[in-house]
Amino acid sequence: MADKLRVTQLLDDLGVAVIEGGWPGSNPKDAEYFQRVHELELRHAVLAAFGATRRPRRGADDDPNLLALLDSGAPVVTLVGKAWTLHVTDALRTSFDENLAMVADSVSHLVAAGRRVVFDAEHFFDGHAADPAYALAVAKAAAEAGADTVVLCDTNGGTLPGTVERVVAEVRRELQGVRIGVHCHNDAACAVANSLVAVQAGASHVQGAANGYGERCGNADLFAIVADLELKEGRKLLPGGRLAALTSTAHAIAELANLPPDGRQPYVGASAFATKAGLHASAIARRPDAYSHVDPGTVGNRMQVLVSELAGRSNVLAKASELGLDLEADAELGARVLDRVKELEHHGYAFEAADASFELLVRREAGRLEDLFELEGYRVIVERRPDGSDLSEATVRLRVKGERVMAAGEGVGPVHALDQGLRRALEDRFPELESIRLVDFKVRILDGRAGTKAVTRVLITSADDEGEWTTVGVSDDIVTASYQALVDGIQYGLLRRSIPAAVVLSGG
Amino acid sequence: MADKLRVTQLLDDLGVAVIEGGWPGSNPKDAEYFQRVHELELRHAVLAAFGATRRPRRGADDDPNLLALLDSGAPVVTLVGKAWTLHVTDALRTSFDENLAMVADSVSHLVAAGRRVVFDAEHFFDGHAADPAYALAVAKAAAEAGADTVVLCDTNGGTLPGTVERVVAEVRRELQGVRIGVHCHNDAACAVANSLVAVQAGASHVQGAANGYGERCGNADLFAIVADLELKEGRKLLPGGRLAALTSTAHAIAELANLPPDGRQPYVGASAFATKAGLHASAIARRPDAYSHVDPGTVGNRMQVLVSELAGRSNVLAKASELGLDLEADAELGARVLDRVKELEHHGYAFEAADASFELLVRREAGRLEDLFELEGYRVIVERRPDGSDLSEATVRLRVKGERVMAAGEGVGPVHALDQGLRRALEDRFPELESIRLVDFKVRILDGRAGTKAVTRVLITSADDEGEWTTVGVSDDIVTASYQALVDGIQYGLLRRSIPAAVVLSGG
Repeated sequence: MADKLRVTQLLDDLGVAVIEGGWPGSNPKDAEYFQRVHELELRHAVLAAFGATRRPRRGADDDPNLLALLDSGAPVVTLVGKAWTLHVTDALRTSFDENLAMVADSVSHLVAAGRRVVFDAEHFFDGHAADPAYALAVAKAAAEAGADTVVLCDTNGGTLPGTVERVVAEVRRELQGVRIGVHCHNDAACAVANSLVAVQAGASHVQGAANGYGERCGNADLFAIVADLELKEGRKLLPGGRLAALTSTAHAIAELANLPPDGRQPYVGASAFATKAGLHASAIARRPDAYSHVDPGTVGNRMQVLVSELAGRSNVLAKASELGLDLEADAELGARVLDRVKELEHHGYAFEAADASFELLVRREAGRLEDLFELEGYRVIVERRPDGSDLSEATVRLRVKGERVMAAGEGVGPVHALDQGLRRALEDRFPELESIRLVDFKVRILDGRAGTKAVTRVLITSADDEGEWTTVGVSDDIVTASYQALVDGIQYGLLRRSIPAAVVLSGG
Repeated sequence: MADKLRVTQLLDDLGVAVIEGGWPGSNPKDAEYFQRVHELELRHAVLAAFGATRRPRRGADDDPNLLALLDSGAPVVTLVGKAWTLHVTDALRTSFDENLAMVADSVSHLVAAGRRVVFDAEHFFDGHAADPAYALAVAKAAAEAGADTVVLCDTNGGTLPGTVERVVAEVRRELQGVRIGVHCHNDAACAVANSLVAVQAGASHVQGAANGYGERCGNADLFAIVADLELKEGRKLLPGGRLAALTSTAHAIAELANLPPDGRQPYVGASAFATKAGLHASAIARRPDAYSHVDPGTVGNRMQVLVSELAGRSNVLAKASELGLDLEADAELGARVLDRVKELEHHGYAFEAADASFELLVRREAGRLEDLFELEGYRVIVERRPDGSDLSEATVRLRVKGERVMAAGEGVGPVHALDQGLRRALEDRFPELESIRLVDFKVRILDGRAGTKAVTRVLITSADDEGEWTTVGVSDDIVTASYQALVDGIQYGLLRRSIPAAVVLSGG
């Protein structure tokens, strides 16, 4: 619930016009959302509650679904009704006339109660293909009963752009005085394009989902639609300056949804403006606009130069220079760094996300990195005891500034125990460590088909009060991989407190 | 290299017309591919080698790139040249006329050597926006020099469908007697739709990538394009019956590329035909065509009923019935199963992929599952020794059929060691275990922001000679989570050998 309210706030901050918050008639959680959403002070968005038309052969007055919609207090109601004859006969099991009456009654009931009704004509495109006159009759029934917007839904998601354009234009001609909207799914890989084509054909209301989340292949990605329309069609949709919040909004919502952000997502993905083609690196440095469909800054994203096995020298140099490390001056060092990167990537390392590990690598190759400690060994014990409880403990043996240190840590699982042990062993010599915390931990099995012997890549993100950094470790043993990433994270964290980045290489 | 040849074979088996195998002039690996690809017996596809036009102010005869293209022996050459004035001046740093000469010379040189030339007009749409006459002049130069196909490339990927339609139609009118193609990227989330719109406007050659792989936001997904055109536009592209291989081809290529298959990928994703809306479950059982844009079987995929916290009773029943378990007969058991699923999903379990764990859960609730053994405890030790080597060992203590068994296992990492120990402890009593192997191991950190204490979900796929099954484990300790999934995997594997699924619940 807290997450859902937070997403509402994020979408309002972005400047979305209507936020559909849930289906109050379907479950208590959604009903609670509409109670608690009043705690928020929304500046841009109005709230919509979603629900279905009244039941067949019953009144609108005492319909539990319509009552729940009114009880939600939402000023907008998204009311869904059937527009495909097949669904009227086989899902609703009622007559075509009764379905029309259900639509008209429900809309006028809500309108009479002062609600703005957005009518979702479910399966409209499939319905139009099967029986265009009936699909249009449903849309007209909603419009004539007072719906403010009639939304043509591609519920099964299989409609192609040519059809969307033709049908939207036809409905536009047939239905005067009502706003036309669309609601597209991505089952034919056309959800965003269909939404854009619909707007060109006269639709002025588009329903989409943050990051394209939704069942099956997803809904139309709202963020791509907004960016396409603003940056390429010159339409003002968001309040001034808010488009630059697109990337951070998308990532924050992914985090709240507990889904890994899609690096390839248009506009907002981490790789959306990435390049690894060695061929282009120098040209890109001269004319970024020649290699990028929009300026990444307009959507709050940034260009990224990837370090990759195939990328070649110029990319490694560019990546280093992005980090404030000048490798141009020393060709031999540049070559050594490149060799090392290639070798490690061959073993499964990925430096695209692990800037901090890459920087440590460069410093190490440059002979400008003093390791803060040496590892003698560790031992981690994970135990399931007869009483069913679990225990993880680690002992760590290090040499720190010439002195031998041993410490133990306990934790929930082997990596946590190791992290605790390592910190204990180092805390006396490096009290600054206390302000460095672990904020993200990702595990990727690189070759799942090797079963439990598979190579594991661990990415760890650490943070202090001033920022975050990411490190990588790779091994066929998850504990070893985690240890590498942990140590790099600590080493980098301590380093960044003492020495500004650019000094270490160029200074003596 | 072996992987690349395997992908070539897979695409040929599917029935793709042209396979672009690499850039022989760019690196020795790609050159080697063209030597070794002759080992394959391709039935449908011809091979294309990719490369750039000759260098500025030099001859075509001794151009190393063109030589490498001819040396590759590929019957088709995809030749890329500049169509955007900005790239001519700023990337190539040559004159507009010289660029036209580079295109014409290179095409005619390759055509004279007997190659079929597909000319990729790079940045065509951006070039057309900036200087339509010059972009067209480049396309014409290639066509007049003998190119068989001129491909309009949306290299930066930002063009919207309306523009693609207009520009392709214009080029179609201007260039007679040459095939028009398109090459789209997904930066504006329109790659597949742009390809379809181009075909409607007269293009008859489409370049795409398997699963949409490609830099930034990806190339157009070839598989979605093929399915859209075959199933919705009535175009025959693949040899008869091969469309049904689409899903298995897509998954096999993902595996070879070592990328996790995208569950939401149109047509071929595991969730592409999934439903979890409790509302629909009973209606879907009656009329699957009312809820699915195409029959999943046509692309070799299948409908999937998801078990989900929000799904409600009818979905759990449907899932059970999919597995041959009839819960309808026992309402009280159905309710108990649903409660248990909800509780576990709340803790991070996901049964969507873990059919085998779900089946064990149902059998357990039905009182029809005898656990094969009881765990007394285990201990796993992971050690980094002073010589730098790693060691993982596990001791496992079980009660098997009343008898106490203890065994030890060694492995690369804690999970592998535990797997070995468990198998040792069980092998005497269950010799069938030998034929059950672990084939996939996935780790997902559910709340990465909790750092190394995060809750971990492990999915393990096991196999015997007759099939695969997937099990799930969840814990804040990766070893415990893995143990659960391992044990379920073994238990299910032993169970399926002894008792056919449907018998256990309905029998006494």
